[in-house]
Amino acid sequence: MSLIVQKFGGTSVGSIERIEQVAEKVAGFHANGDDIVVVVSAMSGETNRLLALASEIQDQPVAREMDVLLSTGEQVTVALLSMALNKRGVKARSYTGGQVRILTDSAHTKARIREIDDARMRRDLEDGSVLVVAGFQGVDESGNITTLGRGGSDTTAVALAAALHADECQIYTDVDGVYTTDPRVVDGARRLPRVTFEEMLEMASMGSKVLQIRAVEFAGKYNVPLRVLHSFEDGPGTLITLEVDSAMETPTISGIAFNRDEAKLTIEGVPDTPGVAYKILGPIGEANIEVDVIVQNVSHDKTVDFTFTVSRNDLAAAQSVLCRVASELSAGEVCADSKIAKVSVVGVGMRSHAGVASQMFAALAEEGINIMMITTSEIRISVIIEEKFLELAVRCLHSSFGLEREPKDESTH
Amino acid sequence: MSLIVQKFGGTSVGSIERIEQVAEKVAGFHANGDDIVVVVSAMSGETNRLLALASEIQDQPVAREMDVLLSTGEQVTVALLSMALNKRGVKARSYTGGQVRILTDSAHTKARIREIDDARMRRDLEDGSVLVVAGFQGVDESGNITTLGRGGSDTTAVALAAALHADECQIYTDVDGVYTTDPRVVDGARRLPRVTFEEMLEMASMGSKVLQIRAVEFAGKYNVPLRVLHSFEDGPGTLITLEVDSAMETPTISGIAFNRDEAKLTIEGVPDTPGVAYKILGPIGEANIEVDVIVQNVSHDKTVDFTFTVSRNDLAAAQSVLCRVASELSAGEVCADSKIAKVSVVGVGMRSHAGVASQMFAALAEEGINIMMITTSEIRISVIIEEKFLELAVRCLHSSFGLEREPKDESTH
Repeated sequence: MSLIVQKFGGTSVGSIERIEQVAEKVAGFHANGDDIVVVVSAMSGETNRLLALASEIQDQPVAREMDVLLSTGEQVTVALLSMALNKRGVKARSYTGGQVRILTDSAHTKARIREIDDARMRRDLEDGSVLVVAGFQGVDESGNITTLGRGGSDTTAVALAAALHADECQIYTDVDGVYTTDPRVVDGARRLPRVTFEEMLEMASMGSKVLQIRAVEFAGKYNVPLRVLHSFEDGPGTLITLEVDSAMETPTISGIAFNRDEAKLTIEGVPDTPGVAYKILGPIGEANIEVDVIVQNVSHDKTVDFTFTVSRNDLAAAQSVLCRVASELSAGEVCADSKIAKVSVVGVGMRSHAGVASQMFAALAEEGINIMMITTSEIRISVIIEEKFLELAVRCLHSSFGLEREPKDESTH
Repeated sequence: MSLIVQKFGGTSVGSIERIEQVAEKVAGFHANGDDIVVVVSAMSGETNRLLALASEIQDQPVAREMDVLLSTGEQVTVALLSMALNKRGVKARSYTGGQVRILTDSAHTKARIREIDDARMRRDLEDGSVLVVAGFQGVDESGNITTLGRGGSDTTAVALAAALHADECQIYTDVDGVYTTDPRVVDGARRLPRVTFEEMLEMASMGSKVLQIRAVEFAGKYNVPLRVLHSFEDGPGTLITLEVDSAMETPTISGIAFNRDEAKLTIEGVPDTPGVAYKILGPIGEANIEVDVIVQNVSHDKTVDFTFTVSRNDLAAAQSVLCRVASELSAGEVCADSKIAKVSVVGVGMRSHAGVASQMFAALAEEGINIMMITTSEIRISVIIEEKFLELAVRCLHSSFGLEREPKDESTH
């Protein structure tokens, strides 16, 4: 008998018919003797309906009241799913975030979980009940309703799994697992049976939006085994764990991530004095613009060229900040380029295998793809290339690292 | 400076436009320096939307989950109204029933209020905030969400007013006060500046559905001055108090109430033995049918005719119970008549004035209206008549008791 926390997102509970399907699935697990805690989001469309009501009143309503408003979305779903379970003869009890109680800080609309009181949940689980918990929401010290912000329901599920020491936290979604790369780009993309939290974080931040980064971080921190599964198709999904099973041969590279949402800014001829990077990036940070890849080339003529990438949405704002900075620094021209993309190879196996970078660069060179910028982490190498080469780059790297083939030991699974 | 509790029903907050109007009204009171607690219902239509979702799943969902579902309706309204107040520069804070906290018993969907914790509300009032409280809902000892059943928002308002020792509890509605009778029936019907709780209870139970009986009872018990007002038209409304001002001449009769929803059942030739009334009405009560007027005539030939009225909806069920009882008691025929109505004269002044009954019967006789049954309380006389005479009876009584004229002392107001 296991204790499993299952999370179903807005699309999975988007209609009464879907809620019935989820109830059917949950009832099946319960019949197998597992203890089940289900976390649900608002029915798809509901949050937008509530936002539209609020925006009729005010553009920026006070955050406390937004939370009171939006938290009703999940509350409706927990009640309906509990009814659907009761109908199937399964004892079920709904909980709001405040009832659990999921204690958060008071940062309305983007609160962070501080503590979860698991006493009441344990009592109900011992009683044989399925617990149906509203995702995305909590309550602060003063009893005010809070919400966790985007992707908050994933975080709720992971936090509950951590508090209850659950055997697994299952995130049901519209894909059947984490892939070596986007199957829409590479035909041979393969579902990964396992990835590590670190790899998942690198892939999520690279644009493979299966899970919210916050939830993955949380799961990694509390070592909650996380599994990504399809809501309405059967299958083992992808298990995300602290370390890949040591008995298994660790593949060097787990996947190819990519991101089109990149734009590049260069400021030329910056006088090469100490603190120049801060003088450039300080004002960018103050304008709330996040910087991704940064490259500063070697000095020639006592000036440097300084290049960095930002999200395409921020390009115009960043460019205007940079023009001001350039004149203050008596630097040269500011050039902007939004026709770029980022491609990354990710894998914990990289740590113990040399030569990944050279293999990557060779594969790209063979296809005549020019590398504009390079950045690396311990388990990732990313390159910025021209956007038009993106699909070609992903395909040639996927093939070069043999990702379409199952790793040897995996074939026995 | 007064402390006022104001309640706005579902129609008054049925759209964003209406919520803005309510906010405007509340902001005006607040600007006058009054402390304001606003109680609101779900936006009209919202409760039915939620009920429809639930009924897609199950005909009789478990009551606990119905309360979790339905309580979201008021929660949406409190958030939106708080936003609309904030927009007008008025500090406002929303509360769910659980946050107040309004402690109830655990009778889901028809819970009764046990206790209200006013500490937090007082803190916020001292801070100059308008409090916006979700009507209709509370929380039980274990923290489960409960709802108070039909008309629960009126009860919430009165209970808050009692707990906070408010100067007045104002119920905003779609009529501008309590009338001497239904203005659709009598042109000269007049708004009453004041009525007593007792009179209001007699009128409400007679079919003048301005306020929920439960809320009036509650207000009477805790002596909360209650005022009925129009949501969007200015005017003094009707004040409902413990006793009419003693300085004022008490009118003998305050109003004429009537009720079409009556049906009459007679069981003839019942052997006149002790306990016969119980033998007849016991099975009716067991079938959850409420009985209104009861008449048992004098015995002749050692049998009696026993007549009582029920709501028209219950007529068929009551008739089938009665046929069974009749055969068990070896009684005669069972006759049913749904073409009847009840007309009542109501007034606390009746206590000290003799002759009200004779004046009433004379007025009806003059119009040739036959009285089928009579029942009285200390401040009310009701007669059952043929339905076709209803309007005529109401008009002649209204005129006979001079209700279209203001009482002498009232003219100075």
